[in-house]
Amino acid sequence: MSTLVTGIAELVTNDPSVGEGPLGVLTDAAIVVADGAVAWVGPGSAAPAADRRIDVGGRAVLPGFVDSHAHLVFAGDRAAEFEARMSGARYDGGGIGTTVAATRAASDEVLRGRLRGLVAEMRAQGTTTVEIKSGYGLTVEDEARALRLAAEVTPETTFLGAHVVPAEYAGRTDDYVALVTGPMLEACAPHARWIDVFCEPASAHAFDGDATRTVLTAGRAAGLDLRVHANQLSAGPGVRLAVELGAASADHCTHLTEADVDALAGGSTVATLLPGVEFSTRSPYPDARRLLAAGVTVALATDCNPGSCFTSSMAFCVALAVREMRMTPTEAVWAATAGGAAALRRPDVGHLRPGARADLAVLDAPSYRHLAYRPGVPIVRALDVPDR
Amino acid sequence: MSTLVTGIAELVTNDPSVGEGPLGVLTDAAIVVADGAVAWVGPGSAAPAADRRIDVGGRAVLPGFVDSHAHLVFAGDRAAEFEARMSGARYDGGGIGTTVAATRAASDEVLRGRLRGLVAEMRAQGTTTVEIKSGYGLTVEDEARALRLAAEVTPETTFLGAHVVPAEYAGRTDDYVALVTGPMLEACAPHARWIDVFCEPASAHAFDGDATRTVLTAGRAAGLDLRVHANQLSAGPGVRLAVELGAASADHCTHLTEADVDALAGGSTVATLLPGVEFSTRSPYPDARRLLAAGVTVALATDCNPGSCFTSSMAFCVALAVREMRMTPTEAVWAATAGGAAALRRPDVGHLRPGARADLAVLDAPSYRHLAYRPGVPIVRALDVPDR
Repeated sequence: MSTLVTGIAELVTNDPSVGEGPLGVLTDAAIVVADGAVAWVGPGSAAPAADRRIDVGGRAVLPGFVDSHAHLVFAGDRAAEFEARMSGARYDGGGIGTTVAATRAASDEVLRGRLRGLVAEMRAQGTTTVEIKSGYGLTVEDEARALRLAAEVTPETTFLGAHVVPAEYAGRTDDYVALVTGPMLEACAPHARWIDVFCEPASAHAFDGDATRTVLTAGRAAGLDLRVHANQLSAGPGVRLAVELGAASADHCTHLTEADVDALAGGSTVATLLPGVEFSTRSPYPDARRLLAAGVTVALATDCNPGSCFTSSMAFCVALAVREMRMTPTEAVWAATAGGAAALRRPDVGHLRPGARADLAVLDAPSYRHLAYRPGVPIVRALDVPDR
Repeated sequence: MSTLVTGIAELVTNDPSVGEGPLGVLTDAAIVVADGAVAWVGPGSAAPAADRRIDVGGRAVLPGFVDSHAHLVFAGDRAAEFEARMSGARYDGGGIGTTVAATRAASDEVLRGRLRGLVAEMRAQGTTTVEIKSGYGLTVEDEARALRLAAEVTPETTFLGAHVVPAEYAGRTDDYVALVTGPMLEACAPHARWIDVFCEPASAHAFDGDATRTVLTAGRAAGLDLRVHANQLSAGPGVRLAVELGAASADHCTHLTEADVDALAGGSTVATLLPGVEFSTRSPYPDARRLLAAGVTVALATDCNPGSCFTSSMAFCVALAVREMRMTPTEAVWAATAGGAAALRRPDVGHLRPGARADLAVLDAPSYRHLAYRPGVPIVRALDVPDR
C-alpha cells in the first residue's frame, strides 16, 4: 500500500543532491511512502500515482526529529529541586539519587505508563526516533528492568549503570564499577544497544576518566557500542576518551579545551549538544560555533530527564540552539534530524531519501524556519502515514 | 446548568484568603462552575452536588492565562527577517513596514482567518483572555478594519495607529499624528477599549514623548483607556508618561532609570514584561527583580506579533521569566494570570474566586511549577466547561 503526501510547501529532505542547501529543501513538493519507507520525493507537479493521498495543505514537512539522548524510565518528580535551583542552588547531579529511590520503589506498570506517556508526548511534538537510557535503577535488577521496558518502545536502548554512584556505594566507587562491569552488564547487555557513562570528575556523584574507560571497555567487550556524557560541568577527560574509543557521540560538550575540539574534529564522534540542560540549570551554553567552525558533526537532543532538563521538545532545543548558541535555523534543524541520526549511527532515519524510514514530521507553518521563529508554540507533530 | 470539576491535584485560585501563598493554592480541590462563572471552590471532599461532573484526573488547574499584549491582525511572514536578526541584524522596529504592506493588501477573510487561527492556538495553550492591537493598517480604513475584526474575538481591543510612522508619512510625523488623533481616532474609537503608542525616541520609526502625550490625551478624550509601549529599546519617557497619565500598563520596561522604577512604584500602572521579545531579538531581559523589589505590579504577556516575537505561548513566557528574569515560578504564574488581569483592569479574570469568569486552564502535570519545569512542552490548555 502506497501513500502520496501532497501540498508540501517546503520539504526538508536532508539530501543536498535533490534540493537547496544543506537541508536539501524542495518547495511545492510531494513524497510517496510505501511499506513504511520513502519511495519517491520530488516536485508536486511530477508526483506519481499512489493508492492513497494525504494533502497537508501548504505545510512544511521534514524528517521526524531524532532525539539521541533521553532518560525516560523513572518515577517521581523533581519540580521542587528545579524551583530551588532557579533560586540559586547549583546543579551537580546529586539530585539523581531522588529519582533512583522513586524508580526502584515503582512498579513495572508505573514505569511503563510514564515511559509510554513521554514517548507519546515526544511523537506529538515531531520526534520519531528516541534513544532511552537506564540509569535510575543502579542495581542489577533495576537496571535490567529499565532496559527491558525501554526496549519495548525503541531499539536505541542505552545501559547507563554508570550514571551516578548510588548512595549504598558512597566512597566505594571501585566496588560499584566492578558491579557495573560484572553482573550488571551481564544482565543488561541483552536489552541494550549502547553503553554510556556520566564522566565528570567535577561531580562527587559521577565517574572519572579511569572508571569511564573501564566501563566503556567492558561494555564494548560485551558487544555494546559507546556513547559518553562528557564535559558537562568541567573540561574533564570525557570527550577525548569518547573519540579515542570510537564512541558514536560525546554528549553535552559544554566545557571544551582546544585539545577536545581538535580530537572531535579529527575523529568520527558526534558532538551532541543539549541546550535544554543549560536552560534548566541556568548554565552557560556550549559553543556550537566553535565546533561547527572546526568541522565537527553537531547533533541536538533534549536530554529529557526529571532533574536537569524536563523538556521533551526538540523544537524548543532548536529555538535555543538558534537564540543561545547562534546556530542558524538550517544548522539547528539539520542537527536535530540528520545530526541525531549520525549520533545514533542510523542511516535509515534523519533524512527523506528513497529508502529512508517513512518518519515524517509536519509543521503548522510554511517553513522549517518557524521552529525557531515561533518558540514554545507546538507547531510540529509526527505525521501518521498508515501503512496498510 | 452547573458543572463540578474534580480530581484537581492543585488548584491555583490567586486568592490568598482561601489557599496557600500568593497563588492561593488548594490541593485535592474541586470547583463548581455555573452560568459561565465560578460558583464554588474548595476541598474535593467538601464539593457540593452539580448537574454534571468533569474529572481532571490528578492534574493542576489554574486561571486561564491573561495575555494583555498581542498583535494578531496581520498578514505576511517575517521568518526571513528573524533569520537575519539571529545572524546579527539589529531590531529597531523597521520591519513593521513589511507587515503593514502585507496587511493592507490582504482581504478581510485572510485577516480574519489568521486572527482566529492565532486565538485558537492561544486557547489551545491555556490563554482565555487576550488583548489585540491594531497597528499594521496605519490608514483610517485599515486601522478601523483591524479593530472591527479584533472586536469579533475579544473585548480587549487596542487602537495602535501610533505603532510606527508609515512610509508615506516619512519625515512628516506631525502630519501622521494629526491623522491618528483626528479621523483615524474617530473611525477607530467605536471599536476599541484602549489606545496605545509605541513610544521610542531611539527608533526612527516610532514616537517621541511629545507625540505620545498628544496621542494618548486625544485617545482619552475619545473615551479610550491608556496603555503604552514604553522603554523597549532605550530609557525614554514612555514609562513616566504612562504613570503620569494613569495608563493601565507600561509594556516592555526593558530599559528603566531609577526615576522610572520610582514612578511605577508610586503609581497604579502595571509593568508588563514581554520576555519573548528579548528571546526573539536576542536582547537583554528586563530586570523583573528590581521591579518586584520596588513593589511594582508585574504582568507577563507574549507580545505575539510577526516581527519581534512570534510566540503565542504564555507558558513559554513563564519559563523565560523564571530562567532569564529570576522570577520564581509563583511570581511568574501570578504575573501571567492575575498580573495580566490587572494590566487590563479586569476584575473578573485572572483568579478563581466565586464570581470570576469560568476561565480555567488545565495542566498535564500535577503542579503549576511544571510550566517552568517543562519548558517548550505543550502541557497546558484551556479547559472547556460546557455552559449548557
